[in-house]
Amino acid sequence: MILTVTLNTALDITYRVPSLRPGASHRVAEVTERPGGKGVNVARVLAALGHEVTVTGFSGGTTGRILRDRLAEVPRLTDALVPVSGTTRRTVAVVDGRSGTTTQLNEPGPVIGHAEWSAFQEVYEDLLADASAVALCGSLPPGVPVGAYAGLIRTARAAGVPTLLDTSGAALRRGVAGRPDVLKPNAGELAELTGSHEPLRATQDARRRGAGAVVASLGPEGLLAVTPEGRWRAAPPRRLRGNPTGAGDSAVAGLLSALVEHRPWPDRLARAVALSAATVLSPTAGDVDRAAYEELLTGVTVTGEATAA
Amino acid sequence: MILTVTLNTALDITYRVPSLRPGASHRVAEVTERPGGKGVNVARVLAALGHEVTVTGFSGGTTGRILRDRLAEVPRLTDALVPVSGTTRRTVAVVDGRSGTTTQLNEPGPVIGHAEWSAFQEVYEDLLADASAVALCGSLPPGVPVGAYAGLIRTARAAGVPTLLDTSGAALRRGVAGRPDVLKPNAGELAELTGSHEPLRATQDARRRGAGAVVASLGPEGLLAVTPEGRWRAAPPRRLRGNPTGAGDSAVAGLLSALVEHRPWPDRLARAVALSAATVLSPTAGDVDRAAYEELLTGVTVTGEATAA
Repeated sequence: MILTVTLNTALDITYRVPSLRPGASHRVAEVTERPGGKGVNVARVLAALGHEVTVTGFSGGTTGRILRDRLAEVPRLTDALVPVSGTTRRTVAVVDGRSGTTTQLNEPGPVIGHAEWSAFQEVYEDLLADASAVALCGSLPPGVPVGAYAGLIRTARAAGVPTLLDTSGAALRRGVAGRPDVLKPNAGELAELTGSHEPLRATQDARRRGAGAVVASLGPEGLLAVTPEGRWRAAPPRRLRGNPTGAGDSAVAGLLSALVEHRPWPDRLARAVALSAATVLSPTAGDVDRAAYEELLTGVTVTGEATAA
Repeated sequence: MILTVTLNTALDITYRVPSLRPGASHRVAEVTERPGGKGVNVARVLAALGHEVTVTGFSGGTTGRILRDRLAEVPRLTDALVPVSGTTRRTVAVVDGRSGTTTQLNEPGPVIGHAEWSAFQEVYEDLLADASAVALCGSLPPGVPVGAYAGLIRTARAAGVPTLLDTSGAALRRGVAGRPDVLKPNAGELAELTGSHEPLRATQDARRRGAGAVVASLGPEGLLAVTPEGRWRAAPPRRLRGNPTGAGDSAVAGLLSALVEHRPWPDRLARAVALSAATVLSPTAGDVDRAAYEELLTGVTVTGEATAA
């Protein structure tokens, strides 16, 4: 199975309003609610692709209970979340029907106690025994040490399990020192990590900081990958209009899906770009339009070159 | 006991953010969560004043469970909510720390089935046997007939229990035809009901539509009452700065509290204005600052005249 780690899981709530006006009172026309946190989103896409996937991290309180009830409905997904005394956070996305923009409100997440963090590390080590790859995704809740990802990456390496890291800020800066096999920053995270806004330079710089491969997501332009086997750019067949929420998580799912099938890098990137594009096109934020994915996969262009062996 | 009816109960969530910017992503600095819906707020204030109070209406789903867990912690408050298959709504209030303004997002509420509405009416009739007064508060959830309040008022009258109605829109227009003993509109509701923006004229007009007494809340200016015993204006001792959320619900609690103690109208109005003002001054939205209430009560001015007997 593929393991995804989401230390700061969330219950993602989406409100559609005709128009968001600060200071006003709004009747919400439509409410949707689903399990969230980047690793949970990655797991849902992997399960939809037919992979067995296990979700770990923390959950607690009433929102944690709703989250677990909803995860139990997903075929091929195993819930190995560690219970905590705090309450899983909510995120509220307010979608303005007129402008199409989304306003995001993110609760901070529960404080994780020392014993809870220790309990998680034990569960994680046990789960690695059956894992073909592990994705470490998203922000750290309060109480988890900022160097957490570096430690989890080292534990996975000791167990022979390849790692992918997708986080931001201090968690990214400290996590990359653990030498993940794949680092998946977006353009903003890459610039924050390296200080460079030039994608190729920044991607190379990020790799020098410890990552085996760096796959930078550049929004509508697709992916740029610097790996031990070579460098590639992968782009969708056409400019897409839609909701980019979750597109990065779908790219992570594509990379992992092809990685565990031992596919070469160009195939991994094509799958990641097609899944990401199919997420943008889906009417439901963060979902993959399966038919669109299969059609897009045939049209993704991957350019670049393998390193001479 | 005093009975309060809240057909559209809510779990009220408050988010504090440094500044709300549409289209941006916000980390919420502080989250608070509490049972809501106007009748629930009225009941909390009555319980704080030392009254035995019973809350009825509907609750369902996970948010309904949280609501009931929290109500169980309130001394002197009895939960007689009727379970429904739908899920109790949430409301999200986003408080902008810079401007102080609040942006409100209200979920629509669960659809109430025919059998659920019938079950409620039976519970309500049973509860009236022990009630000294009943407050009917807030919006109607989908599925409840728009004339609901008129019917509930007639049932209470048949049981000899005085009624107070505090609602808006069609529920108010249709409810007033049931002839509530007291109608408590704010200036906006009064204008919507009568078409007049002149408070005294609108209050008299509202009374002619069927209410025994009309107590209009005029924001910082206090209350205007037209009753069978006379007409009065009641005003706080000074201009108050603070958060008006819940001030109207506190006024309802003040009116009911003095009504069940058979106090004359000027005393009822003084209590309502002082509680309302103490709510504006409270650091927590909707709470009453008890010491401020007692101090304000001595300073409220009530002017007007009793009708010649």
